[in-house]
Amino acid sequence: MKALLLVAHGSRRKQSNDEVVLLADKLRKNCSQQYNIVNAAFLELAEVLIPDGIKQCIDAGASSITVLPYFLNSGRHVVEDIPNILNDCIALYPEIDISLAPHLGASSLMMDLLMASAETAKSL
Amino acid sequence: MKALLLVAHGSRRKQSNDEVVLLADKLRKNCSQQYNIVNAAFLELAEVLIPDGIKQCIDAGASSITVLPYFLNSGRHVVEDIPNILNDCIALYPEIDISLAPHLGASSLMMDLLMASAETAKSL
Repeated sequence: MKALLLVAHGSRRKQSNDEVVLLADKLRKNCSQQYNIVNAAFLELAEVLIPDGIKQCIDAGASSITVLPYFLNSGRHVVEDIPNILNDCIALYPEIDISLAPHLGASSLMMDLLMASAETAKSL
Repeated sequence: MKALLLVAHGSRRKQSNDEVVLLADKLRKNCSQQYNIVNAAFLELAEVLIPDGIKQCIDAGASSITVLPYFLNSGRHVVEDIPNILNDCIALYPEIDISLAPHLGASSLMMDLLMASAETAKSL
């Protein structure tokens, strides 16, 4: 079984974390053909944290987990912190295939998204 | 003349700020039909700050400025800080039409971007 784990930074503001969980719910509906399991996890400040998110996917039967960082830039969190945490998970669960997607700013679709978003701007 | 101002949070890590400036460069090339001026600005920690970014657009001849927040969630920065700064700018330049786009997570294209990004994941 294949899992997708959407990983956001986590915020002290509950509403921001809820947005990430809602986005994972939406992803689950949209990519049920590609992924049997879709969950959200957080780097810090919110639950579930990444190691628990990985464990939840495995407990639900995942043999491969794609981690999708919900980050715009290639900052320290994306380049160091998330890979380090995932490498610890790989040491714990060597039989699970864990892969990591790039930060969202690297996507070729970001330009389309930015231009579409600009078109929905409202006067202040 | 129309301007587009891409506004990111700003980071202590120069490379993250450089990514935003490069993205604005790319936007400039891609939407020269819609916008005569495309610049980047930052909420904090990096230059130029938003008021200076607005002033640069006006000095370059902009009569309307679309502010595009490079933020994923509707956190305090998007909901309060950026509108407050822009309202101060409107008080300074009442003749300029300043509009604000939603955070990127609100875009209907985000689902496509997330799914495309997941497909480019690499094993750790």
